[in-house]
Amino acid sequence: MLSKKISLKEKYSKFNKHWSPRIIAEMNDYQFKLAKIKGEFVWHDHKDTDETFIVMEGEMILKFRDGDVPLSEGEMFVVPKGVEHKPCAKNECKILVIEPRGVINTGDEKNELTINEDMWI
Amino acid sequence: MLSKKISLKEKYSKFNKHWSPRIIAEMNDYQFKLAKIKGEFVWHDHKDTDETFIVMEGEMILKFRDGDVPLSEGEMFVVPKGVEHKPCAKNECKILVIEPRGVINTGDEKNELTINEDMWI
Repeated sequence: MLSKKISLKEKYSKFNKHWSPRIIAEMNDYQFKLAKIKGEFVWHDHKDTDETFIVMEGEMILKFRDGDVPLSEGEMFVVPKGVEHKPCAKNECKILVIEPRGVINTGDEKNELTINEDMWI
Repeated sequence: MLSKKISLKEKYSKFNKHWSPRIIAEMNDYQFKLAKIKGEFVWHDHKDTDETFIVMEGEMILKFRDGDVPLSEGEMFVVPKGVEHKPCAKNECKILVIEPRGVINTGDEKNELTINEDMWI
């Protein structure tokens, strides 16, 4: 079982690309993904599922149509399904995202930020 | 949306009882639970679901029948469904547990540590 232990710090050291979530674990049909974010993402929603953000290091802003939610290390937010949101970070921020397997990072808004493959680290 | 922001630190300040997980959020039919643990829990498994542990502060040991897995702050472990485990902590350890709604903390091993109610904070 020891080999199943996961160090978030060690996993974060394995990639540097922003807005490029990496899968580190699965629980049933849910996935845990690490991401490093900086700058502005795109407005999108996920029609069929909630999505959880936990800030592990740094600060981010979850923008919603009705206002901004600043999040710092040790803070989390569950974005309800169907709610438009836009993650942003002035400086690099390390986050843990939890959502069902198969969720597309940009929702229905396919663009150059859309990730089409599962990237495990 | 601002009211949906969750501070783990603030939530941890709201209870002190060991082995008494408190629900802080739901994502679809999954729950996020904070727990403070110290001492030895009971051997148990969850027949129908995986269970995720993330150590937020301190150190714990996840005992399995085939060996111990020590976990420190920033480390996580997904216990596969049906696998017997026994969480332990020499000193108080703060953990985040993620699992489907309705999971009983002691599995089928009902005893004095079994929590039969949803306790939100």
